[in-house]
Amino acid sequence: MPATLGELADRFGCDIQGDPSVVVECVGTLSGASINAISFLANPFYSSQLKDTQAGAVIIEEHYKEVCQTPALITDNPYALYARVAQFLHPLEVVNPSIHPTANIAIDSKISGSVAVGANAVIGSEAKIGESAIIGEGCFVGPNVTIGSYTRLAPNVVLMPGVVIGERCIIHSGVVCGSDGFGFAREDKLWIKVPQVGGVRVGDDVEIGANSTIDRGTIENTVIEDGVKLDNLVHIGHNVIIGAHTVMSALCGVAGSTIIGKRCMFGGAVVVVDHLTICDDSMFTFHCTVLQSVSKPGTYSGALSADSSKRWRRNAARFKKLDSFIKPFRKDP
Amino acid sequence: MPATLGELADRFGCDIQGDPSVVVECVGTLSGASINAISFLANPFYSSQLKDTQAGAVIIEEHYKEVCQTPALITDNPYALYARVAQFLHPLEVVNPSIHPTANIAIDSKISGSVAVGANAVIGSEAKIGESAIIGEGCFVGPNVTIGSYTRLAPNVVLMPGVVIGERCIIHSGVVCGSDGFGFAREDKLWIKVPQVGGVRVGDDVEIGANSTIDRGTIENTVIEDGVKLDNLVHIGHNVIIGAHTVMSALCGVAGSTIIGKRCMFGGAVVVVDHLTICDDSMFTFHCTVLQSVSKPGTYSGALSADSSKRWRRNAARFKKLDSFIKPFRKDP
Amino acid sequence: MPATLGELADRFGCDIQGDPSVVVECVGTLSGASINAISFLANPFYSSQLKDTQAGAVIIEEHYKEVCQTPALITDNPYALYARVAQFLHPLEVVNPSIHPTANIAIDSKISGSVAVGANAVIGSEAKIGESAIIGEGCFVGPNVTIGSYTRLAPNVVLMPGVVIGERCIIHSGVVCGSDGFGFAREDKLWIKVPQVGGVRVGDDVEIGANSTIDRGTIENTVIEDGVKLDNLVHIGHNVIIGAHTVMSALCGVAGSTIIGKRCMFGGAVVVVDHLTICDDSMFTFHCTVLQSVSKPGTYSGALSADSSKRWRRNAARFKKLDSFIKPFRKDP
Repeated sequence: MPATLGELADRFGCDIQGDPSVVVECVGTLSGASINAISFLANPFYSSQLKDTQAGAVIIEEHYKEVCQTPALITDNPYALYARVAQFLHPLEVVNPSIHPTANIAIDSKISGSVAVGANAVIGSEAKIGESAIIGEGCFVGPNVTIGSYTRLAPNVVLMPGVVIGERCIIHSGVVCGSDGFGFAREDKLWIKVPQVGGVRVGDDVEIGANSTIDRGTIENTVIEDGVKLDNLVHIGHNVIIGAHTVMSALCGVAGSTIIGKRCMFGGAVVVVDHLTICDDSMFTFHCTVLQSVSKPGTYSGALSADSSKRWRRNAARFKKLDSFIKPFRKDP
Repeated sequence: MPATLGELADRFGCDIQGDPSVVVECVGTLSGASINAISFLANPFYSSQLKDTQAGAVIIEEHYKEVCQTPALITDNPYALYARVAQFLHPLEVVNPSIHPTANIAIDSKISGSVAVGANAVIGSEAKIGESAIIGEGCFVGPNVTIGSYTRLAPNVVLMPGVVIGERCIIHSGVVCGSDGFGFAREDKLWIKVPQVGGVRVGDDVEIGANSTIDRGTIENTVIEDGVKLDNLVHIGHNVIIGAHTVMSALCGVAGSTIIGKRCMFGGAVVVVDHLTICDDSMFTFHCTVLQSVSKPGTYSGALSADSSKRWRRNAARFKKLDSFIKPFRKDP
Repeated sequence: MPATLGELADRFGCDIQGDPSVVVECVGTLSGASINAISFLANPFYSSQLKDTQAGAVIIEEHYKEVCQTPALITDNPYALYARVAQFLHPLEVVNPSIHPTANIAIDSKISGSVAVGANAVIGSEAKIGESAIIGEGCFVGPNVTIGSYTRLAPNVVLMPGVVIGERCIIHSGVVCGSDGFGFAREDKLWIKVPQVGGVRVGDDVEIGANSTIDRGTIENTVIEDGVKLDNLVHIGHNVIIGAHTVMSALCGVAGSTIIGKRCMFGGAVVVVDHLTICDDSMFTFHCTVLQSVSKPGTYSGALSADSSKRWRRNAARFKKLDSFIKPFRKDP
């Protein structure tokens, strides 16, 4: 969907430098864009590419105006403006209401007339699906599942019985939501299964990455609050609560009954033990192990156990020279 | 399925405190249960909730009798008794023998008349499925697969050709069992695929969590013995043997040809290198890296390599102050 | 497919010791092989098994000739020769061209006449599939996907729109390729989705393990070059480039925009942060965290951040005794 720079500036309320009649049709990187594309500069790492870009227009901060030869949108937050412009130029595919003839739909399910259901999808008894939702090919939507309006399930998603998904969510392929929590009681060295009778409740505007798994609660619900974004291959254990607008990168895992606050940020492969409470606005860096509750917002790091990032960085630097430091003190051969 | 406290005490052989005619219908947490629910106290962390619970009944140890105002079942192992009571109150869905008309069943497969096969399931040539098994929607059961009686496959499970699954197993959605092991021979900087001609043999009473993967053996079998419980997103490499009644939490991985003993316990995200031998009754704490064989039962920890937990905890505590300790010895700026 | 030792020696150009008329039909381990099997000795760990093997023939290096009583193929690289012999004795199933009647094939897709498409597979508009490819049961091949000749998709693979897969690839069950990259712009503590408009391009002779995920690029492509082998549960973020013939074991993750060179080797559970550049011929040991670019080929290790393996091993050894070393210096209780 092409637009002039002037139209984009009006729509998103930002300033222009250069010709407002320039037309852009798609997005591009500074180094790879052609003349019909709009690019952006958000990470200073790429600033040297600004002067040579072939893009038709760019999105930049005020202080790049002087070095920028290309027609530009000016903003305090180029990445957010880029996201909005990209959404506008590359809109989501329009939902084409239809139920594929090979889909298996329980007769007592309640499916809005504006929903698209793909080939071989299965929708169970008393499931409810809101307007303009998309159920991808091969998805399993169990009995009593509720899916909010405008939510999109990619192919081969599994929502086990009773799971509740909010509005405008995006659930990527291979996600399993509502599988049994990992609960066993030990007796005479054997394991007795503890029935997992709770559910999963996912809020609005949540995105869940490919092949991630979210277990149902033991008794009450596992909860993913509004606006949470989970990357691929993330595991959320039973009874966990993930606070609103928290983001979690790929290969993270949260063990059972841990409560994570709002607006937290988890780098990739961060793992969190069970029964912790993590306060709002906590950040955990890449591959960190979280073994203790966190009651103070801040940035935490560490492969041993989460520590303040400043202290961790110092210790880690020392660790790299630990052997050479200690050697003179010892009579090792 | 409602029951009186007296019926439960009779069935499970335990003592009662209070009115045996109290009726319970479901389970609940101490803090969230209503009058029709039975709750339990197994973790002392929650003991303060006992006096205020609204539950109709509770399951407790002897020493809580005095402080407990609620009708109670008394036992040495409240969590195990809770598991049995919960199984009784929330029984598994009865298998409704049926083959969905959209299932694809090879004519030479042998499927017990009491099996339920869901929509779009595919069952290959000469597969054998025992009585009262459930094959979920969209499952692939390859040629020559054997599935024991009462085993349940959730939707979208894949069992590759020749895999053998025992009785009463629970296989959650997205599990892939019998994919090729990761075997390549290097020649002139290229990789030649080593055919993976072994199989996978899973014992009885095994549970495998969502999206976990179990590779087939290179020549002989990968083996998961009776009673093993694997959580979500666990990887078991080719030729691995997991001993009976071992449990492994989410995001664990075991590299090829490692042999793990019986009754071992793995916290989340523990990874084990190849060709090790781990003895029976070993425990590994959360996010531990296991780089050496273990010949002595005990608890092991460590992000560097598994160490005795006691020593590891001391070292990890020191590590957090490593920088401040070393600094005075050095002339760093 | 049985063969004499003489035929194998001719076919693969190696020497024989012993009777060339010996017939072998399958492969076996040194300890488990029966008389109709050929085994091999590549790992000296197993050398003591050579003299007692019941195998009909073995594949060995020159220097084992004297101790070997069994008819043998002699080679410098027994594992590579074993791989070729095993491929010959256990050939891939011949593709039986056919389209299952329950497959959903877009009428404008272009599918070679020699392709096999399994039950319930879905093939989207304008998808192109080369000769003798196999599309497993329940696979989703999105619109505009291209799949090269002889490539095999196991059941329940998802290839999202526009993904390009080369020739002779093997994609295991549950793989998701072309899911959205994890891209969000922060604005007023909320997250705005950044459209992921790039694609995924996978080269020739690539193998991707079960339940692995490869995200599409933000603007340009995520690229997996020729000959790359990825194990199970691997995550490849958006915009990543994996150089030719690199291998990556299970549970590895590579964060967005990182560029990995050719012929690199990653042990299990290695995680790499975003925006790094890793040079050709780098090796990373098991469960290593890679936080910095690598510009010099070599072997790197470390749970804190990648370090030279030699230095890392020394430090890790010291770390195990850190507490006992530091204690006398301090006045701890």
